Amino acid sequence: MFFSDEYFMKIAYQEALQAYELDEVPVGAVVVLNDQIIGKGHNLTQTLTDVTAHAEMLAITAASNHLTAKYLQDCTLYVTLEPCIMCAGAIALAQVGKLVYGAHDPKRGYTLLGKNILHPKTEVVTGIMEEECKELLIRFFNQKRDS
Amino acid sequence: MFFSDEYFMKIAYQEALQAYELDEVPVGAVVVLNDQIIGKGHNLTQTLTDVTAHAEMLAITAASNHLTAKYLQDCTLYVTLEPCIMCAGAIALAQVGKLVYGAHDPKRGYTLLGKNILHPKTEVVTGIMEEECKELLIRFFNQKRDS
Repeated sequence: MFFSDEYFMKIAYQEALQAYELDEVPVGAVVVLNDQIIGKGHNLTQTLTDVTAHAEMLAITAASNHLTAKYLQDCTLYVTLEPCIMCAGAIALAQVGKLVYGAHDPKRGYTLLGKNILHPKTEVVTGIMEEECKELLIRFFNQKRDS
Repeated sequence: MFFSDEYFMKIAYQEALQAYELDEVPVGAVVVLNDQIIGKGHNLTQTLTDVTAHAEMLAITAASNHLTAKYLQDCTLYVTLEPCIMCAGAIALAQVGKLVYGAHDPKRGYTLLGKNILHPKTEVVTGIMEEECKELLIRFFNQKRDS
């Protein structure tokens, strides 16, 4: 891999900023295969009034469409926030090769379950751009609270 | 409620039959509000090459679109097979009021996790049309094995 995890997390962060601009909880995701982005997504649950429209779900769907393949064993999913249980379930079903996330989600993250629900072959890297990803979420929720 | 759980599970089963006709794992789902069906779906993971295209996900998205509302607290989701972790996560996010499923899924069902990942207010009813739902899945997998 020529590009670093930070490089792609920055692009996921750009996706999160797009969600922020739309007044959505700012989470962004990209799916990468051989240093190429093959799927992107940002949280659109408010815009689409659909709880399933999390950034990861949209990025996985986009990547699978791109590859015309259900399984993403050779791909890496970058997401600015630790996936929830739904998204972790999707990541497991798609057998994503590597998951990289930024901020931890102590309230809704899948690791709260206390057991690994991902595919046993999925490599997990955490804490990439953690502070920036977390700060964006805190800024969003502070604005919501004050408005 | 004028109609019974069996009544709506039969319609979910009709959805499963549609999946079967498409050579998809035969699972079907409907979302019901006040005795009216407001969302339907059948498994389309092969057709759409998308692991997220489970019957429940499509039915939840359809129901939320219909209501222009993310939360389905007053709705019942009928599905012919016990939801997987991804779908249970979505059912939790949507705060579905009642979940009714037919066949148990001893390999991928969310109850394997050993803890309830649904919303605490979600009522769960199991075993409605269990034999028919299970028989359809067995028929599908036997055909796959023999082909």
